Amino acid sequence: MAEGATGLLAGIERVGMDRRRGGFSRHGFDYAEMELREWFSEQADRRGLDVRPDRNGNLWAWWGPPGPNAIVTGSHLDSVPGGGAFDGPLGVASALAAVDLLRARDHVPRRPLAVVVFAEEEGGRFGVPCLGSRLLTGGIVPKDAARLMDGNGMTLAEAMSGAGLDPQRIGRDGEALRHIGCFVELHVEQGRGLVELDAPVGLATSILAHGRWRLTFFGEGNHAGATPMSDRRDPLVPAARTVLAARRIGESVPGARATVGRLSPNPGGTNVISSSADLWLDARAADDAATRAVVEQVTAAAKDAAADEGCELLVVEESYGGPVTFDEGLRRTLSATLGDVPALPTGAGHDAGILAAEVPTAMLFVRNPTGVSHAPAEHAEPADCEAGARALATVLGHLTSTTGRTPW
Amino acid sequence: MAEGATGLLAGIERVGMDRRRGGFSRHGFDYAEMELREWFSEQADRRGLDVRPDRNGNLWAWWGPPGPNAIVTGSHLDSVPGGGAFDGPLGVASALAAVDLLRARDHVPRRPLAVVVFAEEEGGRFGVPCLGSRLLTGGIVPKDAARLMDGNGMTLAEAMSGAGLDPQRIGRDGEALRHIGCFVELHVEQGRGLVELDAPVGLATSILAHGRWRLTFFGEGNHAGATPMSDRRDPLVPAARTVLAARRIGESVPGARATVGRLSPNPGGTNVISSSADLWLDARAADDAATRAVVEQVTAAAKDAAADEGCELLVVEESYGGPVTFDEGLRRTLSATLGDVPALPTGAGHDAGILAAEVPTAMLFVRNPTGVSHAPAEHAEPADCEAGARALATVLGHLTSTTGRTPW
Repeated sequence: MAEGATGLLAGIERVGMDRRRGGFSRHGFDYAEMELREWFSEQADRRGLDVRPDRNGNLWAWWGPPGPNAIVTGSHLDSVPGGGAFDGPLGVASALAAVDLLRARDHVPRRPLAVVVFAEEEGGRFGVPCLGSRLLTGGIVPKDAARLMDGNGMTLAEAMSGAGLDPQRIGRDGEALRHIGCFVELHVEQGRGLVELDAPVGLATSILAHGRWRLTFFGEGNHAGATPMSDRRDPLVPAARTVLAARRIGESVPGARATVGRLSPNPGGTNVISSSADLWLDARAADDAATRAVVEQVTAAAKDAAADEGCELLVVEESYGGPVTFDEGLRRTLSATLGDVPALPTGAGHDAGILAAEVPTAMLFVRNPTGVSHAPAEHAEPADCEAGARALATVLGHLTSTTGRTPW
Repeated sequence: MAEGATGLLAGIERVGMDRRRGGFSRHGFDYAEMELREWFSEQADRRGLDVRPDRNGNLWAWWGPPGPNAIVTGSHLDSVPGGGAFDGPLGVASALAAVDLLRARDHVPRRPLAVVVFAEEEGGRFGVPCLGSRLLTGGIVPKDAARLMDGNGMTLAEAMSGAGLDPQRIGRDGEALRHIGCFVELHVEQGRGLVELDAPVGLATSILAHGRWRLTFFGEGNHAGATPMSDRRDPLVPAARTVLAARRIGESVPGARATVGRLSPNPGGTNVISSSADLWLDARAADDAATRAVVEQVTAAAKDAAADEGCELLVVEESYGGPVTFDEGLRRTLSATLGDVPALPTGAGHDAGILAAEVPTAMLFVRNPTGVSHAPAEHAEPADCEAGARALATVLGHLTSTTGRTPW
């Protein structure tokens, strides 16, 4: 079992390949993600870890009996549509590799250690990112979550039932939370910070505030050839203006990000003026106020554009999370243990960001040569991946070498 | 069998219902369209018509042995995504109802009469409108057609094989064309011309030149949160500018239409900067020069927008048809036969427009109270539908009352 993080990743390199988009499409409870869960359970079994699903569709593999003050590591196995091979799986594979490294060092944990796989972190299927960790911490109302619908009209409740889970039981899981002493997530960096610092591994300081808003423009569906230009109420026109507004407003607020990556005219026929158009705004900034300012400006521009076209506009907030600052004490301990690795902020959301509201949380980043993420070009060199797994093993070894409530 | 055109339409009112988009999604050789073909074959059988598929996936139902100088009527059964119940099926149902009316009048055709169902008229699945009639007339190169791909990566050749057809045999069908003395298509009007003229039925004079162009913008896929605004090459930005350019340029050329109804960012994740974006331009105008001018201006704007964003642009013409003027002699005959019904142009494409290059062709329009088409609100009153079927029966009765080459 000395296959390392990259060897483990090689074992799943064909699961959920997306031939149309490129890269991988692995979404919460779909065929590919279920195959990855099975792979994880098998890998955990081989290591003598005790695998237990929780009520919210997250998988836990325990080294030692589950109990309070556990050191928890892990990440997720789902991807964005057409995503890369590292975002999520690298953290899970590195956790398994770290267990192997600790075993090879004859390490005996003095407190429980768990590897967790969170469900639907990207929100690629049901729209809400970090869905598994949000459910675990009560960050989403269970009945709202159960009703979330994928692109084919299947609800989360139905998908969970199909995966053998009871959707009636989802929601904040106090018992599971009480077991977590601290959470450490390893993740591929989604930027070139470590490249510029010439370091294979770093620690995270903070995450931008971020959220998702769905803007639906309602117009009048009609024939593209028979309808004069002057008689149109085409919802794609204000939607296009909103894409440009998001770009302009995102640029105007320092450090902010405003993105439209998903835009769907309905019915979507070439010779058809759309009857409606859905557009998703992903907005992020350093704090709540700046993020809200971005969203308010974009939705105001969308409203004006809709009015100019005689269209209606509906805005729904699909998710929101305030800025996260990771636990400073834990980070200082990890940094000292690892020998002064650099620390840097990120604009990307993570399950660690959700858990940070509940327990001391830290993140390790692994260098990404191009900085590209959420795309097939996402990459980390094998040597850097193994450096990451070794760093994680060192951290987990240190944190599990003591008993008691605060491991640092 | 005195069920009339509306009675016949009622028999298929549930086939291919699209619960997500509303209306109907019935596309060439898909499950719904195959069910409609079976329905058509059954209806033709019941009337003693001899049903024969041609090499290009069109269905012919013959009253009398197939032969030269036949009077041919019919339309199509496929729809745009989320389309209405009348565009296509009304022409097929009215043709069957007209056969019933002629039988009830003890009419004996003195030349063959055929009802034809053309395949994939809307191009909703394989992108090329009037695909069946284009193949029949040689308006598309067979090997190019065979390679056309639907949204799931299935080629036309594969879909045709699945429907029991031999894709090796597609292409211009001289024998079938030599049988057609003239073609008369009945269709719901896609505008309010007949409403304004206070007439239930009219004749078509002409069709705008029209075509479809796919514009693909290539940028750099990346993370929506981790990528600073200044580091982006987001292909949805020039795509949005192109939507607005199409609107502006369509308005600037008198009588022109420029529409983007289909726009698809790839991979299409909320938290993902797109790596590419496909946009389809539907452009129409009175003549070739005006249509080309619209397309050239829109693609020039798209090129500038792409360059501004550091994106590449690929433009592919997916289909093009010049303006059509229907046969004047045939129209005068029909108008006299029907007692001076109004005649009006249309911006919508039809199989009749493709056949007009080969044989004398005419179209009957049935009043549409709202003018809406290619949308669930598309409608024609039952009384108007039956007036249309009666008018078609009168026309077919007149045209089949003589022998010889020119029936008018």
